[in-house]
Amino acid sequence: IRVGTGFDVHAFAEGDHVWLGGLRIAHDRALSGHSDADVALHALTDAILGAIGAADIGAHFPPTDPQWRGASSDRFLAHAASLVAARGGTIVHVDLTIVCERPKVGPHRAAMVERIAAILGVAADRVSVKATTTEGLGFTGRREGIVAQAVATVRLP
Amino acid sequence: IRVGTGFDVHAFAEGDHVWLGGLRIAHDRALSGHSDADVALHALTDAILGAIGAADIGAHFPPTDPQWRGASSDRFLAHAASLVAARGGTIVHVDLTIVCERPKVGPHRAAMVERIAAILGVAADRVSVKATTTEGLGFTGRREGIVAQAVATVRLP
Amino acid sequence: IRVGTGFDVHAFAEGDHVWLGGLRIAHDRALSGHSDADVALHALTDAILGAIGAADIGAHFPPTDPQWRGASSDRFLAHAASLVAARGGTIVHVDLTIVCERPKVGPHRAAMVERIAAILGVAADRVSVKATTTEGLGFTGRREGIVAQAVATVRLP
Ligand SMILES: [Mg+2]
Ligand SMILES: [Mg+2]
Ligand SMILES: [Mg+2]
Repeated sequence: IRVGTGFDVHAFAEGDHVWLGGLRIAHDRALSGHSDADVALHALTDAILGAIGAADIGAHFPPTDPQWRGASSDRFLAHAASLVAARGGTIVHVDLTIVCERPKVGPHRAAMVERIAAILGVAADRVSVKATTTEGLGFTGRREGIVAQAVATVRLP
Repeated sequence: IRVGTGFDVHAFAEGDHVWLGGLRIAHDRALSGHSDADVALHALTDAILGAIGAADIGAHFPPTDPQWRGASSDRFLAHAASLVAARGGTIVHVDLTIVCERPKVGPHRAAMVERIAAILGVAADRVSVKATTTEGLGFTGRREGIVAQAVATVRLP
Repeated sequence: IRVGTGFDVHAFAEGDHVWLGGLRIAHDRALSGHSDADVALHALTDAILGAIGAADIGAHFPPTDPQWRGASSDRFLAHAASLVAARGGTIVHVDLTIVCERPKVGPHRAAMVERIAAILGVAADRVSVKATTTEGLGFTGRREGIVAQAVATVRLP
């Protein structure tokens, strides 16, 4: 068993929806970034890469590379999962924490779990999605952006 | 083995003590929140819930529910432990990190370990409490609030 | 298997290099702290201490103790590894995340992995180093300091 963690931040910008946990969620702001800026899938991707020692999402998908402009982050996460499989490993569990005041994550939790499980090719009971706020403090409290952190439990042969 | 993490923040308000790690600690500020605002026990609760994929503390104990006003956070953590037991699992280890300039956590570490172990029903050598600061940076550096993060190692059948 | 996490922050100050991940890296700022302020090795040290329930880096190496002034953080990390060995345990995996806008970590990743593996006495494929930014937000976005977080997977008998 090896455990990795991921951490990511994206800032809010003008827009009417965010991509979060693989879902398109209506919101009065968007998240800025070179890809679809799905901060939650990025943190999960890094957690899995960290568990297998395969560098980080920026090494695999450089934000300076035009081919990833607007890319769906599903492919980043699926790539990390494929690297685990290529080493004969399995993803035992992933746990995601989304930190923001808005949008509210709770109403989307079950759908995020299903979506992430589908991308990873694991049972939904091996995927956890949680949310919290910073009680008005810091940049998440000022609604300047969203933080996501993730932890992946991976079995390698 | 499945691993979950928890993260929580509570802001300082007027008062003369904080609840932290299950202990009442004299301080020149209090922590604000609907319950007793024990940010450390909240992070631990979320870490355990994350390891077993049981949503988050806000889903189990909504801050909008008046029955949790001023509630001791012991019951939140004990509830998470009971969910592990109900699935036939065991809590292998929990590790807590408290981030603040004040109060000083070190003098209370041993008592927190004992208290958390008692709430979880595990041996004290399966509970870790650590503390650090952000060296004056950010909202913890400005003494606006306390951050707690936790990681739980859980065995499920 | 027991899992611990570590978190540390050091602020930038005047200088021409930082110690980061066991490496001396040329930079237009330094990191301030009592030791060499290697925030990455400090987070790793705390992650290992957390996994074995051995308090935290501040308890072992108090910043108020003059003997640690300017100390190389290698010895802090090596001490944590020695405590694992003394309990008959093994370090299965460590995963480090460095959060800053600058210096760029990517060009140093491979050397950091080698250096950390050497300090810990483990194979390099059991060490992961990742980096990310906060996209201009918060104190890391304002380039006031560097955050490091780490997770250690440890086997105890
Ligand atoms: Mg990102
Ligand atoms: Mg709370
Ligand atoms: Mg330090």
